[in-house]
Amino acid sequence: MSMRQGDVEPMTSTPKTYHMTPDEFRRFGRAVVDWIADYYERIESFPVLSQVQPGEIRERLPATPPQQGEPFEAMLRDVDEIILPGVTHWQSPNFFAFFPTGASFPSILGDLLSSGLGVQGMLWATSPAATELETHVMDWLVHMLGLPSRFLSTESGGGVIQDSASSATLTALIAARERATGLESNRRGVREELVAYASSQAHSSVEKAMMLAGLGRENLRLIDVDETFAMRPDDLGRRMAEDRAAGRIPAFVCATVGTTSSNAMDLLAEIGPICREHGAWLHVDAAMSGTAAICPEFRWIHNGLEYADSYCFNPHKWMFTNFDADAFFVADRAALIHALSVLPEYLRNQATESGAVIDYRDWQIPLGRRFRALKLWFVIRHYGVEGMQYHIRRHVELAQQFADWVRADERFELMAPAPLNLVCFRHRAGDEFNQALMERLNRSGDLYLTHTKLNGQFVLRMSIGQMYTEARHVARAWRRIQEESQALGAP
Amino acid sequence: MSMRQGDVEPMTSTPKTYHMTPDEFRRFGRAVVDWIADYYERIESFPVLSQVQPGEIRERLPATPPQQGEPFEAMLRDVDEIILPGVTHWQSPNFFAFFPTGASFPSILGDLLSSGLGVQGMLWATSPAATELETHVMDWLVHMLGLPSRFLSTESGGGVIQDSASSATLTALIAARERATGLESNRRGVREELVAYASSQAHSSVEKAMMLAGLGRENLRLIDVDETFAMRPDDLGRRMAEDRAAGRIPAFVCATVGTTSSNAMDLLAEIGPICREHGAWLHVDAAMSGTAAICPEFRWIHNGLEYADSYCFNPHKWMFTNFDADAFFVADRAALIHALSVLPEYLRNQATESGAVIDYRDWQIPLGRRFRALKLWFVIRHYGVEGMQYHIRRHVELAQQFADWVRADERFELMAPAPLNLVCFRHRAGDEFNQALMERLNRSGDLYLTHTKLNGQFVLRMSIGQMYTEARHVARAWRRIQEESQALGAP
Repeated sequence: MSMRQGDVEPMTSTPKTYHMTPDEFRRFGRAVVDWIADYYERIESFPVLSQVQPGEIRERLPATPPQQGEPFEAMLRDVDEIILPGVTHWQSPNFFAFFPTGASFPSILGDLLSSGLGVQGMLWATSPAATELETHVMDWLVHMLGLPSRFLSTESGGGVIQDSASSATLTALIAARERATGLESNRRGVREELVAYASSQAHSSVEKAMMLAGLGRENLRLIDVDETFAMRPDDLGRRMAEDRAAGRIPAFVCATVGTTSSNAMDLLAEIGPICREHGAWLHVDAAMSGTAAICPEFRWIHNGLEYADSYCFNPHKWMFTNFDADAFFVADRAALIHALSVLPEYLRNQATESGAVIDYRDWQIPLGRRFRALKLWFVIRHYGVEGMQYHIRRHVELAQQFADWVRADERFELMAPAPLNLVCFRHRAGDEFNQALMERLNRSGDLYLTHTKLNGQFVLRMSIGQMYTEARHVARAWRRIQEESQALGAP
Repeated sequence: MSMRQGDVEPMTSTPKTYHMTPDEFRRFGRAVVDWIADYYERIESFPVLSQVQPGEIRERLPATPPQQGEPFEAMLRDVDEIILPGVTHWQSPNFFAFFPTGASFPSILGDLLSSGLGVQGMLWATSPAATELETHVMDWLVHMLGLPSRFLSTESGGGVIQDSASSATLTALIAARERATGLESNRRGVREELVAYASSQAHSSVEKAMMLAGLGRENLRLIDVDETFAMRPDDLGRRMAEDRAAGRIPAFVCATVGTTSSNAMDLLAEIGPICREHGAWLHVDAAMSGTAAICPEFRWIHNGLEYADSYCFNPHKWMFTNFDADAFFVADRAALIHALSVLPEYLRNQATESGAVIDYRDWQIPLGRRFRALKLWFVIRHYGVEGMQYHIRRHVELAQQFADWVRADERFELMAPAPLNLVCFRHRAGDEFNQALMERLNRSGDLYLTHTKLNGQFVLRMSIGQMYTEARHVARAWRRIQEESQALGAP
């Protein structure tokens, strides 16, 4: 790194300014980097699920903030002594709960640079590189996942980084609402009877988005699913036709590629034409599973995606990128911008008015935004397409191996298809037994898994996608599941 | 840092896994830390406002993502060569545009730890320390700013970290909407004629929130302001009474403590009783200026805040905390949670059902959330209350000094009161002249300032709050303003 200070006076570091000096930052920064490296080296020594009781962490914190500053060493010590016992270790290779959220080292460093630069990317003009790198990396993702070309910024669409799939769903729903009402609900509020559709297995964020957007959760139709827990297109078509016949407007369909409960895959190729027929906006939520499409052999999950008006997946789940990084794409960026744009005087600038640039504030709910493209850029460049394919294939193989073990053990049963890296299973001894089994496993600290309900039954979810999970971790999980089942008195 | 590996097998680091090893992370992490320290030491050598043209950054990036991984050094080199020219330096002491967004070293390190831990704080159970530290630090802020005690988690309210004041406003508006309709609009969509109020000087996020929440921007009444650009309480009362007489429901008032345009202070003590009278939710947006209340002599800005149902300010603006960190408080947490809560099976857990814990997913729009309390904790502990007071007082003094210079120079005029750290001024030579002056200054790279319109006139904003801004930077800015005015042919 060349130093180009020249005639510039370096920042002074008298104690009086209270600032941490650049040299102190070098020293403490190194200590934090080492702390993190140590953490990953010892992560398997902690119970995966934090074992503290409510209030236990707060009790150890001083009631009032310090009047005088404290040394940095004291904070780092408190992280070890007070914070760590209250941490559930999402980065542990024994974490099989919910969905993974990978924080790879390259992503951490990209995010660190973003914190260091400390720029706002709300407008192109407020840091052109933040906008242009984001547009560029989003286009890369279209290529990497083999997504329809209309999601490219060089065609009618484009991508933007949102904080989460929840926010992407809300953003898509609002764009759909405005398309359905010709921007009238933005102007004078919701008046029309707009209806939205998702399968009974869709993420709770669809219901929440209906509430937030002023459309009401009763106007969300939960469509029946088939035996694979995928949306039944015939039921969707029937419900949309009923609504139209009753004078309501089918405005929005959220299809899921990999449901949270059981990784069910809605059939876009059948759902898409029905949405077109009724004029509804089709949003596709592939939060966890979308990443699989980096491997050509898994691209079938996106069959029919060319019908979608918007799409999202979360690099912060299975693509080794630390939270937050949801990749949200629209086919018609004008529809999105018209729904979200307001322009006060203090944000006016030549670049915006030239129309030659993207201002990402018009692609999202908040105004301010971090330079999040850096971490995605680092992740993609560090692993390369090849490195990502390696890990995705490995996780899918591990999950399929686990499913085979379940299938081969007559005491257990698979409760849903396992198309990728999530295995839904249970002991045949019933709901209470499985709940007790899960609690025993989680309390042991050896692994962490969570549950869902499928067809009214309590089902365990084995979600495999943590970056450092190896065959030995999955094998031990299966052994521990068998051991604790026996300890609970089952055969 | 003690290493407690014991019987734990360390992560392997064969090239085949594609992962960056912990030892490589130590090395590259050190390089990034040094890069950031170097950046702050040389930051004054860059033009504050990026001088690139639209498309210039993208042109230098490869069209497709790499198939094979690349060395980390290549990325860091590209940050220097490709990214930096496209960065507008928000952390420069010569940045006087918009509002400041301070990224102090302690906040950067707290955020780095958050990235390293990589936990999700959506539920208490998913990482108890993330929730409890957040609740605790939010209570600290109530003490530090002398806010009403009903915002404390130990009373009826509580605080939560949101990404931005825009999201806080939307969240408050939705809670207000649901309080006004008895949760009916959540259930079956907006039907009532709900009306909201903010001054004509309020932030554009209020209008955007009205659109997003399905209430419509036409139902936002922009209330007249007085000669200080503060909301006129008499006009507010009149408009609310008119709306009620016409059968509409006054549901929400957003008062601003420090408007974005000119730092105008709405009088909460007069607005509050009017909101009570009409049953409207009072939200107070103190995004930039709230931080001033750390100093007792500036607490007058919050006079009347005891009437507020919700309040927010942004530590990521003037409280030395890197984006994103908006501190949002409610007086009645139940009203917020009822408006935002949905509970799918896969998120059910014993802690939630015991009612003994906070699940912050019910306090915000998205589901997922970072461990953002760490950086606030680090900032407060590093500076102490005393250190923060020192910098706030210094910034206010610098701004008052600048305002004195403007007052003393008959070629220039102040265009609004400057109660804290923002000075609105212009050259007497008219709108076009001031616009040309601003563009010349920004193009020079020596400083960056932005504009607003007040009473229809083009006005320059000198916003002083960047952490490293010293007297010499403000003095140079004033000299450069005078020089460029003369270069433009003015006296």
